[in-house]
Amino acid sequence: MRICRFESKGAAQVGFYTDDAVLPVDAVAHAYTDATGEKTSLPSSGDLIDCLPPDGAAAAEAGKLFAWAIDHRARLAGDAQIPLDDVQLLTPIPRPNKLFLLAGNYAKHIEEGGGVAAERAETFPYVFMKPPTTTLTNPGADVTIPAISPDAIDWELELVIVIGRRAKAVREADALSYVAGYTVINDISNRRFRPNPGRKERAKDAFFDWLHGKWHDSFCPCGPCIVAADSIADPQKLKMQLKVNGKMKQDATTAQQIFPVAAVVEFISNIVTLEPGDLISTGTPAGVGATTGDFLKPGDKIEASIESIGVLRSQFVAEA
Amino acid sequence: MRICRFESKGAAQVGFYTDDAVLPVDAVAHAYTDATGEKTSLPSSGDLIDCLPPDGAAAAEAGKLFAWAIDHRARLAGDAQIPLDDVQLLTPIPRPNKLFLLAGNYAKHIEEGGGVAAERAETFPYVFMKPPTTTLTNPGADVTIPAISPDAIDWELELVIVIGRRAKAVREADALSYVAGYTVINDISNRRFRPNPGRKERAKDAFFDWLHGKWHDSFCPCGPCIVAADSIADPQKLKMQLKVNGKMKQDATTAQQIFPVAAVVEFISNIVTLEPGDLISTGTPAGVGATTGDFLKPGDKIEASIESIGVLRSQFVAEA
Repeated sequence: MRICRFESKGAAQVGFYTDDAVLPVDAVAHAYTDATGEKTSLPSSGDLIDCLPPDGAAAAEAGKLFAWAIDHRARLAGDAQIPLDDVQLLTPIPRPNKLFLLAGNYAKHIEEGGGVAAERAETFPYVFMKPPTTTLTNPGADVTIPAISPDAIDWELELVIVIGRRAKAVREADALSYVAGYTVINDISNRRFRPNPGRKERAKDAFFDWLHGKWHDSFCPCGPCIVAADSIADPQKLKMQLKVNGKMKQDATTAQQIFPVAAVVEFISNIVTLEPGDLISTGTPAGVGATTGDFLKPGDKIEASIESIGVLRSQFVAEA
Repeated sequence: MRICRFESKGAAQVGFYTDDAVLPVDAVAHAYTDATGEKTSLPSSGDLIDCLPPDGAAAAEAGKLFAWAIDHRARLAGDAQIPLDDVQLLTPIPRPNKLFLLAGNYAKHIEEGGGVAAERAETFPYVFMKPPTTTLTNPGADVTIPAISPDAIDWELELVIVIGRRAKAVREADALSYVAGYTVINDISNRRFRPNPGRKERAKDAFFDWLHGKWHDSFCPCGPCIVAADSIADPQKLKMQLKVNGKMKQDATTAQQIFPVAAVVEFISNIVTLEPGDLISTGTPAGVGATTGDFLKPGDKIEASIESIGVLRSQFVAEA
């Protein structure tokens, strides 16, 4: 099952997601009741976590209705299937308590940046945060290149874990049972942010420049939907591709992660209690712009896709 | 005006704060109406930002009622003044969109850690985040020493800016007009967090250990109240004192900040749009435990106080 949020008449609605259309749950529920005589109780707005495993109150109902809708698409009326081109998608979790991301979880990306990729037993996940409400950006929406530092804005395609159950100090073997689903983030990064260029260099300057360069407004496109965890047989076998203006830049698979999804959940939950709706973006593979000096400029368009989830589109604009 | 949140019969309520008692706004409003015949419309629960400058819809009413209550305290009934010892205070902003903190904003603290404190013109603020919902801890509540790494848990007394108005790229000269008020944070820090001790050292390990050591659950006591910005003549003239088990450890003033409050708001708002309720903790002065190797253990009690705000109390417990 794939599920999304979209805007309809100024309000956020829940829809089922397919590669070519959004099926609004309220219209699907009407069609289902008309066809079967059975009522459904699926909420047509609100928090997607309620419709997802492992604990969503409406997860079973959502799965049943999604399967019915896919089976009966040919007979669904127009209001029950809106072409993707006609719908304004919204970021799936607009205000997570935590938006965690990993720096360096694919060996080839660490190496392309000049670093040394240690084996898993010899390292640990580098976790950082972005401010959620000001960075999360809807699918299809503009990303703003900041006027104060516009010259080295880069992309990072990443698989995102959506937490579905409170998790504290869980073991890797159990960790996937705390996952609600997966989505896509493009971890937009400013590679040359350097406030106060007249400063004296100190040891930690480079790190804080790097961190602050992750935080600009709109720098976290997320979506287009969440695929339910129970629809993914193995999160370590998903193809990932990112294109800029139609040209392939990242072409990889989640099999290349140093720390797989379950190990990431184990690691973070040993530091911090994870809560339903928390997002964990699991790092980017090789092929970022920094390696070739090929950075983003106004007018550029990105398609960031992960197998079984979908395509997250963004376009870039200069700050007004 | 000082204003706080507290728990009463299982629900969060708003109260005026004094050094010895909380005056619940609903009881004060009743007393005011009884005495004057005038009704008041101050909300007795909800978001404290609504009661604070510069934009709180109830800010003027709150200020008027607070002044009246202080003037008439001798005649207020018992339900309108609950002794501090009898009240369960709650953290003033329980779910801010952003919880920013500064690393190193007092020269003597940078020097006690072995670093070099550059002049303001030669440096920039080092900003990081804590996960708000899992670290923010109520005044008077337990802070948990994590079982995985209990040996070097430290205190950091800090003045906190509460943002009251959306702020993007504001200038230092205007920045204080975006501030709703001030509170206190004790930025609890694990100085020796080091997961996977068998790892190969890499350049960024020390930084991520430091950052992750800020994130343990309960590591951000905050309160006891917010003092309204228009009650503070100068945020750079506030005495700060932190005692552990009654012994003075930090004894400083906000005059010692490298970047004053207004400069911090300017700096961050040039990277990120600040939103009402965002918290910015402005760094700690000298006197942390790391300097002497004097770390916290179960049973320890801290009083963290800043002039014109109040005393934030915490006690430390081992993880169960």
